[in-house]
This record gives sequence, C-alpha cells and structure tokens, in this order.
Amino acid sequence: MVRLGVIGCGRIGRVHADAVAVHPRAELAVVYDPIEQSAREVGEGFGTRWVTDVDAVLADPAIDAVVVASPTPTHVDLLTRAVRAGKAVLCEKPIDLDLARVDECRAELGAAADGVMVGFNRRFDPTFRDIRDRVAAGEIGGLEQLVIISRDPSPPPAAYVATSGGLFRDMTIHDFDMARFFLGEVVEVTATGSNLVSPEIAAAGDIDGAVVVLRGASGALATVTNSRRCAFGYDQRLEAFGELGMLTAANQLPTSARFSGATATEVAPPYHHFFLDRYTPAYRAEMDHFVASIETGTRPSPGFADGRAALALADAAVESLRTGATVKVGS
Amino acid sequence: MVRLGVIGCGRIGRVHADAVAVHPRAELAVVYDPIEQSAREVGEGFGTRWVTDVDAVLADPAIDAVVVASPTPTHVDLLTRAVRAGKAVLCEKPIDLDLARVDECRAELGAAADGVMVGFNRRFDPTFRDIRDRVAAGEIGGLEQLVIISRDPSPPPAAYVATSGGLFRDMTIHDFDMARFFLGEVVEVTATGSNLVSPEIAAAGDIDGAVVVLRGASGALATVTNSRRCAFGYDQRLEAFGELGMLTAANQLPTSARFSGATATEVAPPYHHFFLDRYTPAYRAEMDHFVASIETGTRPSPGFADGRAALALADAAVESLRTGATVKVGS
Amino acid sequence: MVRLGVIGCGRIGRVHADAVAVHPRAELAVVYDPIEQSAREVGEGFGTRWVTDVDAVLADPAIDAVVVASPTPTHVDLLTRAVRAGKAVLCEKPIDLDLARVDECRAELGAAADGVMVGFNRRFDPTFRDIRDRVAAGEIGGLEQLVIISRDPSPPPAAYVATSGGLFRDMTIHDFDMARFFLGEVVEVTATGSNLVSPEIAAAGDIDGAVVVLRGASGALATVTNSRRCAFGYDQRLEAFGELGMLTAANQLPTSARFSGATATEVAPPYHHFFLDRYTPAYRAEMDHFVASIETGTRPSPGFADGRAALALADAAVESLRTGATVKVGS
Amino acid sequence: MVRLGVIGCGRIGRVHADAVAVHPRAELAVVYDPIEQSAREVGEGFGTRWVTDVDAVLADPAIDAVVVASPTPTHVDLLTRAVRAGKAVLCEKPIDLDLARVDECRAELGAAADGVMVGFNRRFDPTFRDIRDRVAAGEIGGLEQLVIISRDPSPPPAAYVATSGGLFRDMTIHDFDMARFFLGEVVEVTATGSNLVSPEIAAAGDIDGAVVVLRGASGALATVTNSRRCAFGYDQRLEAFGELGMLTAANQLPTSARFSGATATEVAPPYHHFFLDRYTPAYRAEMDHFVASIETGTRPSPGFADGRAALALADAAVESLRTGATVKVGS
Repeated sequence: MVRLGVIGCGRIGRVHADAVAVHPRAELAVVYDPIEQSAREVGEGFGTRWVTDVDAVLADPAIDAVVVASPTPTHVDLLTRAVRAGKAVLCEKPIDLDLARVDECRAELGAAADGVMVGFNRRFDPTFRDIRDRVAAGEIGGLEQLVIISRDPSPPPAAYVATSGGLFRDMTIHDFDMARFFLGEVVEVTATGSNLVSPEIAAAGDIDGAVVVLRGASGALATVTNSRRCAFGYDQRLEAFGELGMLTAANQLPTSARFSGATATEVAPPYHHFFLDRYTPAYRAEMDHFVASIETGTRPSPGFADGRAALALADAAVESLRTGATVKVGS
Repeated sequence: MVRLGVIGCGRIGRVHADAVAVHPRAELAVVYDPIEQSAREVGEGFGTRWVTDVDAVLADPAIDAVVVASPTPTHVDLLTRAVRAGKAVLCEKPIDLDLARVDECRAELGAAADGVMVGFNRRFDPTFRDIRDRVAAGEIGGLEQLVIISRDPSPPPAAYVATSGGLFRDMTIHDFDMARFFLGEVVEVTATGSNLVSPEIAAAGDIDGAVVVLRGASGALATVTNSRRCAFGYDQRLEAFGELGMLTAANQLPTSARFSGATATEVAPPYHHFFLDRYTPAYRAEMDHFVASIETGTRPSPGFADGRAALALADAAVESLRTGATVKVGS
Repeated sequence: MVRLGVIGCGRIGRVHADAVAVHPRAELAVVYDPIEQSAREVGEGFGTRWVTDVDAVLADPAIDAVVVASPTPTHVDLLTRAVRAGKAVLCEKPIDLDLARVDECRAELGAAADGVMVGFNRRFDPTFRDIRDRVAAGEIGGLEQLVIISRDPSPPPAAYVATSGGLFRDMTIHDFDMARFFLGEVVEVTATGSNLVSPEIAAAGDIDGAVVVLRGASGALATVTNSRRCAFGYDQRLEAFGELGMLTAANQLPTSARFSGATATEVAPPYHHFFLDRYTPAYRAEMDHFVASIETGTRPSPGFADGRAALALADAAVESLRTGATVKVGS
Repeated sequence: MVRLGVIGCGRIGRVHADAVAVHPRAELAVVYDPIEQSAREVGEGFGTRWVTDVDAVLADPAIDAVVVASPTPTHVDLLTRAVRAGKAVLCEKPIDLDLARVDECRAELGAAADGVMVGFNRRFDPTFRDIRDRVAAGEIGGLEQLVIISRDPSPPPAAYVATSGGLFRDMTIHDFDMARFFLGEVVEVTATGSNLVSPEIAAAGDIDGAVVVLRGASGALATVTNSRRCAFGYDQRLEAFGELGMLTAANQLPTSARFSGATATEVAPPYHHFFLDRYTPAYRAEMDHFVASIETGTRPSPGFADGRAALALADAAVESLRTGATVKVGS
C-alpha cells in the first residue's frame, strides 16, 4: 500500500482524498489543513488522521507521498519541502502564477523537480486519453487541426478572479496543457478576448471569454474557445482533425434517457454541471498513475516541465492579448 | 418520355402526380377524378389536362401508363380495365380489402396481373432500402430479428375507419409488406391489440394500437408495433438484427439543428409530421422504378403477388386477434 | 455502519461484495462459500473475513444482513434460514425456478417474507429508473406501449442452460420484472421463440431468441425482444410510449469518442460488453437501497412478491410458447 | 412565370439552371456559354434554348432576370450590363477579387447596385437559417461566440488556386459571409494559416488551412476553421453560443441508417461529399428568394453590399496573415 497525505482540504483537496480513498493500493494516511475545521471535517469524513501542522505530514517517515492541493501561492514552498523530505509529490496546477518563481523552484530542486507530477487531470479523462492514444497511433494520419471548447458553468467569485492570475492562467491553462498533450511543443500563440459575461470581471481587469490559436512545431493549429459562463453546464469538447479523419469528444450525459414530444425530440438531460461530476474518473485515473509511478519508481507524467510550459503559454497569451499580435514561444 | 395518367385526385393522387411531374423522363399527361373540382384543381395545379371521364384516360392510346389512386373499392375494376387497355399500372395499396376479390382479379387477368406494380412506397425509402440491401449483402449475417415501429401522428376520421378494413388492413399492411421485404415469406402471425387512443375507433369495432409478431420461413421473428396516435409525429423506425450486428433506421429530422440550454440538451425539432413529408423521396423513387420498368419492359416490384400476400397477413392478424392464438399462413 | 455478509463467492457474489465494499455506510464483514478457494480468494481480495461454514454467517449476531448470491437451488433454504436468524436479506433472482416452492417458502415465512429484497438490479439503473420516475410523474401521459430489447453478448455454457430453467426463467425474468416496474400488474402473456443461435441450446430443449408480448391491467402492451447472442455486446434498451410522448433508454458507451473517416462517420466504440460493466452503477444503487432500508427499518423494494410475480410470468410464457396461444395471468 | 437566363454553363451554372428548372413559378428561358459545347449540353439537358452570344440574353426583352455564373473576372462586366439592360441579377460570389474594382462597379451603377443579389447560398441552408432565425429571436440570449467549421473534401486543382484569389477569397469568403449573417458588422480580423495539405498550394504562395477569429461590433467572437482537405467529405458545421444556451448545426447524412457490430457501433455512412449534395436545398431556396423578390419588387438579400463586405474581410485576413497582427476593419 502506498501511504498518502493530502495537503489542503478545500474543494480540490477533497477530490484527491476521495481518489486516494477508493484506490485499492493506496491508503489515505493523513490530511492537513491550517484551518482546523476543514482538516477535521475531511479527516472524519474519510475516517483518517487529520492535522493542522504540515510538518506532521512532511516529517512523518511513514508517509510515502503527498498531494499538494493548497492555495496556489503556497505550492512552490510546499512542493519544495516535500521533495526535500523525500516524498513523491503530485502538485495541483498551476505550480505558481509567476514563471520566474517556477524557474527558481526548478533551479533549487534540480533534477529532483522532474519527479514531481502536476495535476492536469484532463489528460486522464478516458475519452480524451483514448483520442490522444488513437491520434498517436496514427488513426487520423498527421494531426492538422485541434479544436478545444472549454466553458465553465458560471463565473468564479470576483475575489477569486483577483488572485487567480486571470482567465489564461487559471482556466485556459488546462487547455494549453491539452493542446500540448496533442501537439507536443507549441511555437506561436495568438489570443483574443472578450468581456460579455461579467462586469465584475471586467472591472478586475480580466476577460471572461477568449479564443486562443496555437501553432505546434509541426505546423498544426489548435483553437481554444473559452467562456466563464455556460447555460448548459460544463462544456468540455475536443476534436482532432487529420489527413485520414477526425476524432471527436462530445459532452457527456448522466443518463442515456431521451424524451420526444410534440414540440421537441431526442431531448437529453443537462450535461454534468462541473468538474467534480465530469472528471471524477479522470481524477481517479490520475491518482492511479501517480500511485503506479511510486510503486514502480518511474517518473510520472505530466511533470514539472509540463506545468512550466502551460504557464509559459498563458504568459504568451496575455502578451498577445495586450499587443494584438502573434507571440512566438519556445527556445 | 413515358406519358402517365393519374386516376384519382385525392391526397395520394396528388403525391403521385407530383412524383410524375418532377420525373425527368415522365410526363403527367392527364389526371382524372369523377369530382370535377378535384380534377380541375389538380390538373391546373400541375398545368396538365384533367378529365372526369375515366375512359378519356383508359382509351387514349397516347397514355402509356396509369397510377390507380382512387378509393380502394374501385381499385380492382380500374386496374383490370387499365391492364386490358394495355396500360402499365401502378396501383395504390391495398388492391382490395377482400382477399377473395383479389384472387378473382388475378384469375381474370392471368399472367398479365404480374406486371401490375403495387404502391408499397416504403420499400423505396432510401434508408430502408439501404438497410435491406446491406442485409441481403450479408453485412449482419443471417437475419434473426426485425423490429418495426410504425405510428401515425393522429387517428384517422371515424368515417375512414368504418371503410378502411381496420388497422391491420389499412395501416399495418405497410408493415406486413416491409416484413416481407426483409424476411421473404412469412409462416406464422401472432397478433395482439389495444384500445387506448380513441373511443370512436373502439365503437367502430377496431383496435387503435397493436403488436404483431411474424415468423419468417427462416425462423426469424419480426415485431410490428403500431399506434394510431403519436405525439411526436410520424414514427417510422426499423432495426434488423443478425448474427454479425444490427442495422437501424432512426426517425428523420427536417434540419440538423440542436439546442442545448439550462434544462435540456441536444434538443432536436419535431420529426416529419406524416407521410407526405417523410416519404417524398420514397414516392419519387417508386415512380422512377415504375417509369424505368416501362422503359425497359421489365416487371416492376413489388407486384400483384406482394399486394395479395400483405393482405393475407392482415387477414391472419385479424384471425389471431380474434382467437388469441398464432395463425399459420402460407401454402 | 451496516454489517453485511455475502453468501456465495461466484461472479454475482463478487459484484455484491464490491457494492458493499464501496458503500460509505456498509461494512463487508464476512464472505462465505462452501468452496474454500473461492471464499479465500474473495475474502482476501476485499480484505475481509472468509468462511466455508454458512452458520458462521447466519449465527453471528454481529451480522445485520446477508446477500444470498449462491446457486439458485439453495436460495429458498438460505433465505429462509437467514430470515429466521433475524437478518435482513437481499436474495438474488430468481427466488427459485419452481413457483410451488416459492409459494411454500412464502407460506412458511409468512409476513416476514415481505421484508426480503429480491435482486432485480435493473430497477436501479439510473437511466431506467429516471424514465420510470418520469413516466410515473406523467411526463408522457398514460403509458400505452413499452418496448424492451434485451440481448446477451453470447450464449451461456450448455451446462448452465440445462439447470437455468430456460431462457424465460433465467434471462427474460429481468425483463418481466422491468415490464412490471412500468406496467404494474400484467394480465396476459403471449410468447414466441426461435432457435437461430445455438444448436446446443436447441438440443437441450430451450429456445435462444424470443419475443414476448405482455398486456398490463391498464391495457398497455409491452414487448420484450430477447436473444442469447449479440455481436455488439450487451444490448439493453427500452422505450416507454404514451399519449404525450416517448422516453427512450439508449445503449451506453464507455467513452464519448467518435471517429469519422473516408468510409464511415460518427463511429462509436463497442458498447459495454456485459452486465458487470453496464450495471455497476445499478448494483451499487441497489445496495444503497438495501442498506438504507435496514437503517430506516422500511421495507425494501422489489420484494418477495415481485420475485414471485416475475417467475409466474416466466411460467406463463413457457405455457404460451407450448400452446401457441395467449395465456391469462393474475387473479 | 419569371423568365430567367443563366449566364455560364460550368458546374455552378448547372446548379442554378437546376434550381430554376424545378421552381414552380420560374422558367429557364435560355442558357449562355461562350463555349458552344457547354451551352448546348446544358441547354439540351434542361430542354431549353442555348446561346453563345451573351447579348442574345441581355438584349432579349422576354428575359426578366439573369444568374451570373461565369468565371469571376467577368462578373463585374456582366452584372453591370445586365443591370443596365434592366434585368434582375443574381451574381455568384465573389463579385470580383479586387475590392477597388467592386467599388468602381458600385460607383458606376449607383443605387441600382443595391438590387443585385449575391450568391451566398449557405444563408439559405434550412439548418443554418433556422439557427440564425432562432438566434435573432433571442432563443440563446445575446450571441457571444460563433464557431464555424468549414472544410472542403479535397484541394482544388493548382490552376484554380492560381486565379482564385487564395483560400480567404475563394473559400473562407462563404464563412465571412456566414459570420456576418450572425454577427452583423465585423470590426476586427485575426488570421492564422498553415500548409499541411498540398505542396502545390504552398508553391503557389497560398495556405491550405486556416483559423480566422472575427470580432463583431457587439464584442462577440467568431472562429472560422478551414481546410482544403477533409477525409470524411464536406465538413460544414456551426455553433452559436449565447447567454442562455447554444444552437448547433451538425453535418448531414444521406440516410438515417446506422450499423453496430463487434468492433464499432452506431456507424453512419459518409457525409454528403461536397456542395452539390449538401446544399441542393439551399440553392433551391436561394432561387426561390430571388424569384419572389422579382415577383414582389422587393430588394433581395444578401445584396451587393454583403458581397463587398465579405471581400473586405478576406482582404483583412490576408493582411493579418502577412503581419501576424489583428486588423481593424469597418468605418
């Protein structure tokens, strides 16, 4: 059994705690949160030990691995300490909002950073992964165009936007990673944005809708369409187009029931509302990959470099939005 | 050009007149109806000659062929006279409601009856025909089960029911023919019926819903589900199931537009309302087959024997419904 | 926590053990099988106690409830002993293959039998349940026609068929229950069968395909189409048709990926192969209902009477198949 | 009857001749092509007069209207002469490849130019039109994002590319018009392109794939994805996303047949191969609008200004592609 601690008992920390709890070869040994009520609630909910002192996790030799699911500004410090304490680390995205700080962290940890897994959960979604594997196997020939549509059900609280780093760094970052999952390295970023959803977001200086076009090293073009609001739930689709055909990922429905009546036919229920419903299998598969990497001593993927690369694309998108011009990225 | 006359200017006569009018190698030479207003209306609508004396059609040597689309009780007389006048004949289904009369007609015409085409238009629906051709080509291996769902949007007028011969003879007859199109000869009929739609129909002594199970000579089972009422339009579906797989025909939509919103997703518009919309391509393909058979001197299909066989199955269904037992059919 | 024991460590016993194991308020306290290897394997797999003496389960006061998942001939004896030992009981279907024995069991247990839950798992499938709830809520008006299509991926071993009671009692029984779930009481059964799949099954005197028509007390007609073989996996569909519309349950796909290429478009992957994949959520929801009924002291559903009623319909279908006539059922 | 002449007997001229021929209130009075063989072939095919002298069309007082379907460089001259001859004019897109020449034409004709209809056939596709009408009616609230996917089945001949004006002017121009159909005026164009399909196209200095982002005056963003090659046929999709939901237009299938087998399920046939199949109903509806505008003396739409506007967007896309920056358009 791999013994894990979860650092951070907020919404995403609970998702990871659940993924550990149901894993047949992992044990949720401890959960930590500086706020006692949160720590206790999650600890008791999962029937495990809870602590409010993070050293009780990091210094415990019985803990093999930690999931860093605390607020973003604490990621670098905690992952650094965890790596130094010899723990395997799965760090939620983003590593940090500041690319310079990410690079300092990398410099400080050296090669040990390469063993850190970064939580781009969508790579583990069974549908996206299936499509990516089939593209890699050549089913559609060379990949030429990738269309990613990614919309959240409703805007986050204004307070969150203020510290999130903006749409490109907190929301599109998943899509940047997905584009890299399919394209490999990206060489150009062209971003456009809009403010049609939330005056509060505009007042905070951010956009609430965007279209970003990325060019891969192969010449393939990827398009990411984002919105902070989507009336019909969590809109998570993708299509990979190549010389021999196309693979698409449709939205997923909670049941296969459909209604037909006098004014409408084949009516499906609303889609999964948000990531907790849509990506439960992805979080569990992500945890399985992390656990297996610990058991076998292999390097997990996506890793630190992937976390850095997605952030660099977000920075490039910010610059492109500011200048109205395509930004070259990569060395 | 093949010169055609249409006998009968009611709803179905107009459908055939249209199919002739748009055919590139056929000419709508004359239309007939005993009611002057009907004849004139259709004749003027299609810019062609109209008559109220049927001999003006049957005796005209310039007419190559006729479509018999008059009321059912007149079919036998008119098709007999038309055959004797040397016309090619496409007769609307059913040939007659009385099997004995059909057999007398056959006896009277002899082999000439075999050249009469019977208007089972659904055999020419592009989707059903495609599926049947693929079944015949072995795509699903041996056919084992056929499921036909066939529902009308709303009950016919009570006056129609009184003279229609009942649900099995006026509505299911299309499905009996479709079953024969797939199964070949049918050897057993087991019928059940219900009265859940229309008290008027019950009062007239007929059922308004039914499930009929047919067994083909190969042992395959076909199920026909009928209703006189369907809230979402004209429900016309079919599935052919065999050793290697299944071919299905879904209902067809007027556009490919779908709506997704807060309470429902992937909402399609209502289906085609009734046969005029749903089967326009089928009626045109049927006419094309009839015209081509005249041009090439080949026997059209489905023919007189198919018209008789479907009626025999309707009679067997009536008997099965009455006795509550399976009825053997065929020689 | 509700403490459960699972009696029988075959395929279906393992399914129930899993459902207990993942339930947040249930504990898999013990598993039993007379074959030591089976008991040990399952016990060790779930990290729980295993025994080969059923009394170690039934006589243990710490066990609140048992799942009877042993071979069918042992059901009556084990459920009787379990009820007498004061355990809550979830008994796999069928209660027994012999209606007389079921009735004796009922007589012997008296009202206590009514507390026994019978394992018709499909009632707990989220899609079927959603549709049934919506029908009950009047979304389609009065239910008029129910179409159930239920096909297994491949025939069971000949040895199984010999003792299974035949297609109607081991396979269609689920569909009989589903029909009752929608229709309430059934008053007529009309069955047809075919032998197109397996000579071994024919040699054993059973059919391998069937169409059964059931009439509910309301007059609604239900059609069940069965096959012992289905090339594309486990075919589990249903449609409920009523005055105001239709609710359908399509087959379910493991991912939402679709491929379009030069010769085919919108190609989906194979459906779930069999019940272990298709009905995992149903087994878990079934267990949740059982656990909740224990916690709240309420009677679980479906119960003993439902188990009896489905078997009575199977017997009626056998008779209808033999006589070629509709069989009346019910009091 | 409206009497029409078709100028140009190439592929698109034949499409229009067909649309006239089947129109109940229009007559195909004459067809013209400078190449005798083309003119004769089309004339005889439709059973109408054919000429090789365009004045025989323009000077004939019996001709009410003309369709200009000749090569692009001749459009301005012919539409100018036709307008001066008092004919109603439907001119194929583009009016010309050179915006300056279009403006000269407008200046020369003055207000009479506004009566010229321009052949953006896709506006008349029943699905796109339905969606646009529903968006206009407020079904999705304010339009925020429009996604247009438009791919041709295979690259045009190199000779065509050399004179077509390039991908933006010959292919994307339809999508620019579609964007305007939904967004109204466009204020910004950001274009990216790729060369992954055809070395010949690259050698001719053009791109063979593109993503163009357009911003409407309302702030809404439209994305156009183009490719000169599509393995699965003519890929013509669209989605309109707004505050209250989304309307999508899926690709259309020739039949509703689907196959399910051991390795794949719900397999549909290939989509319509190209515009002749996909847009036949659109061309007919376009002709109906043109005919009705003549009958009623109302101005047809889309008109000359729409033809100019789409070309201006193509020019802007060319500039954006060259500079790598967003281009502002409009006054």
